[in-house]
Amino acid sequence: MERTLSAGDIQFGYAKRYFEEFISSRPKIREALNKVETPAILMDLEGIKARYVQIRYHLPEVNVYYAVKANDHIDVLRALAEVGSGFEVASSGELEKVLSLKVPPERVISSNPVKPEEFIDFAYRSGVNRFAVDSFTEVEKIARVAPRSRVYVRVTVPNEGSDWPLSRKFGVDPETALDILEFAKEKGLVPVGITFHVGSQCNNLRNWFIAVRDSSYLWERARSRGLRLMVLNMGGGIPVRYLYESLRVEDVAYYVKGLLRKYFSVPPYELQIEPGRGIVGDQGVLVTRVIGKAKRGEENWVYLDTGVFNGLAETLGGIRYPMFLEREGDLKEWVVGGVSCDSLDVIARNIYLPEPEVGDRVYILSAGAYTSVYASEFNGFPKPKVICL
Amino acid sequence: MERTLSAGDIQFGYAKRYFEEFISSRPKIREALNKVETPAILMDLEGIKARYVQIRYHLPEVNVYYAVKANDHIDVLRALAEVGSGFEVASSGELEKVLSLKVPPERVISSNPVKPEEFIDFAYRSGVNRFAVDSFTEVEKIARVAPRSRVYVRVTVPNEGSDWPLSRKFGVDPETALDILEFAKEKGLVPVGITFHVGSQCNNLRNWFIAVRDSSYLWERARSRGLRLMVLNMGGGIPVRYLYESLRVEDVAYYVKGLLRKYFSVPPYELQIEPGRGIVGDQGVLVTRVIGKAKRGEENWVYLDTGVFNGLAETLGGIRYPMFLEREGDLKEWVVGGVSCDSLDVIARNIYLPEPEVGDRVYILSAGAYTSVYASEFNGFPKPKVICL
Repeated sequence: MERTLSAGDIQFGYAKRYFEEFISSRPKIREALNKVETPAILMDLEGIKARYVQIRYHLPEVNVYYAVKANDHIDVLRALAEVGSGFEVASSGELEKVLSLKVPPERVISSNPVKPEEFIDFAYRSGVNRFAVDSFTEVEKIARVAPRSRVYVRVTVPNEGSDWPLSRKFGVDPETALDILEFAKEKGLVPVGITFHVGSQCNNLRNWFIAVRDSSYLWERARSRGLRLMVLNMGGGIPVRYLYESLRVEDVAYYVKGLLRKYFSVPPYELQIEPGRGIVGDQGVLVTRVIGKAKRGEENWVYLDTGVFNGLAETLGGIRYPMFLEREGDLKEWVVGGVSCDSLDVIARNIYLPEPEVGDRVYILSAGAYTSVYASEFNGFPKPKVICL
Repeated sequence: MERTLSAGDIQFGYAKRYFEEFISSRPKIREALNKVETPAILMDLEGIKARYVQIRYHLPEVNVYYAVKANDHIDVLRALAEVGSGFEVASSGELEKVLSLKVPPERVISSNPVKPEEFIDFAYRSGVNRFAVDSFTEVEKIARVAPRSRVYVRVTVPNEGSDWPLSRKFGVDPETALDILEFAKEKGLVPVGITFHVGSQCNNLRNWFIAVRDSSYLWERARSRGLRLMVLNMGGGIPVRYLYESLRVEDVAYYVKGLLRKYFSVPPYELQIEPGRGIVGDQGVLVTRVIGKAKRGEENWVYLDTGVFNGLAETLGGIRYPMFLEREGDLKEWVVGGVSCDSLDVIARNIYLPEPEVGDRVYILSAGAYTSVYASEFNGFPKPKVICL
């Protein structure tokens, strides 16, 4: 007798295997799962360090600057500082945290192309002097506040196939990029390179292809205009698994190394990458609790004690988290509602789970990036507590 | 010679008149505009009280329960407590704030149909005993934790024409509503009424028409099943002006009063309304500062020191704020970017402003509701400070 797998078997089966594998090597997290007060995000510091080392292993010639915005918990930053990571920051708040760990300012860059002037000033006085730009206005600001700083220009690249595209707001075309670099030189800054971003959670290798290829063209044109570039900053984009598998670090690394060999016969003096999600995304689990159930027409609804305003904002942008529940029984399709009385607060649709009861714990996997940092206390509900183990 | 008004003249002209009218009667806010550290939300407490009184004046037979989630600043709550407002809360956090002002628990209700059990318990022990329900599970929870409480059932109504529709997540059909009320009675609770929500920022009077009409039908059917209802809770929905004019309080009130007369020959024992945005929405201005400008292709971009993650989340759902800038000169069309390096952080498109310079203050009007409460400190940027004047 053959048995056909249903959509639910596949989805919940994947979540179950992911969950079991995740806790099997993380005894501290396994122990905390049923004890911690919900909602809480349990982060695996050893896993984060291991991921950093893994990226370095597969991209040995690339310096890693962790994008602090993905998860700015001080223990996460400390773990990464311990293994020698650099840091990418966008604000005085982020920079203060990183410096409080005695990270040398030479290991810090700022790739937000539009920065408050007070931040540039604070960064410069702290010894940070590498900034992204993508406008003449930004060059003027940096020249005024942080003279002789090194700047790299953000160019647009396609973002198709990324779950969180990043090219609508920043970046300029190659011609303007060169004009901006030359303007920076005129203003007494040091134009050092190019940056791009293929989009966060990028599962489309073609984006990397176009980005590296176009960067090499721009690199050559800069040289012909008398600009000797040194830094190629490749932004973020390394994906992690969510409801489905993603490309692995080694897949991306292997492909990118090939591209660099092909398009840069002389390698840039410094290669940079800024993973955030790619380091912490699948190293955290959000522990939630069922607070209610309802049948609405044909839909089965289950409500958790957290929601899109308290940590799961990325669901609004299309991120689909794997969810696991320790019950047996037939799988049903659920709409998962958040805790607030805002109807935008719907965490997911088409989620297959065994029938839960009020009080059951639901484990939301791959909740390490862009969760706590987006959380508010809307409707008077607490943010998930971040607990690093 | 005739001069044709452009789209920019109309839009910026409206923002300018709104701004001038707003500050003309608010000398404390006018004085603070150029002094406060940005970003900051300046709230007018007298304006909030006046709006409460205005709603009461136009709906004298309706009790007002301010929806705390819209703006939970303690001074806002205190001002409303002083003029006798009731409060609608959804969490222990909100309830604690309200009770800290010595508001009698009889003036507090909770209309979130799915509530954490700890909250129900805390509310009940505090003397709050009126809860919305829309599922059998919720009735069981309340019966267990808060015996003999009064419950009102949330029914679905159309939300077309509301800028922030609320009927996807909560509410049941009339038949299930009656079953839930009867089940509540069986469980020893007191089934007291019906609640609906026409959608936040509702500019479509037809939603009110259908909601009140259908409620009256349900009311009669409840009577025929031996349930004597007493409370008609009409939720929120009173709109405030944003980039364009909205219905005024008196328009909504006049229409709703007519509907109640027509469909309820015997008026319900208690009529309730739960405005949040309708009370505080246009009583606050968000003061921001320009941090950068860029030309991207044909688009003019201006960047402010706050963004969708730091207070302007409702722009993601379609709310368009009026913006004003104290400069003369030709109007240009702008894309307004937020402070973070997330490309979702775009505050508005198609905004007409005179050319701003870095450092200029931009005043975002109608920023009193659903701003500070949604704010996170994403990317290390501070939330706007709420200053009540």
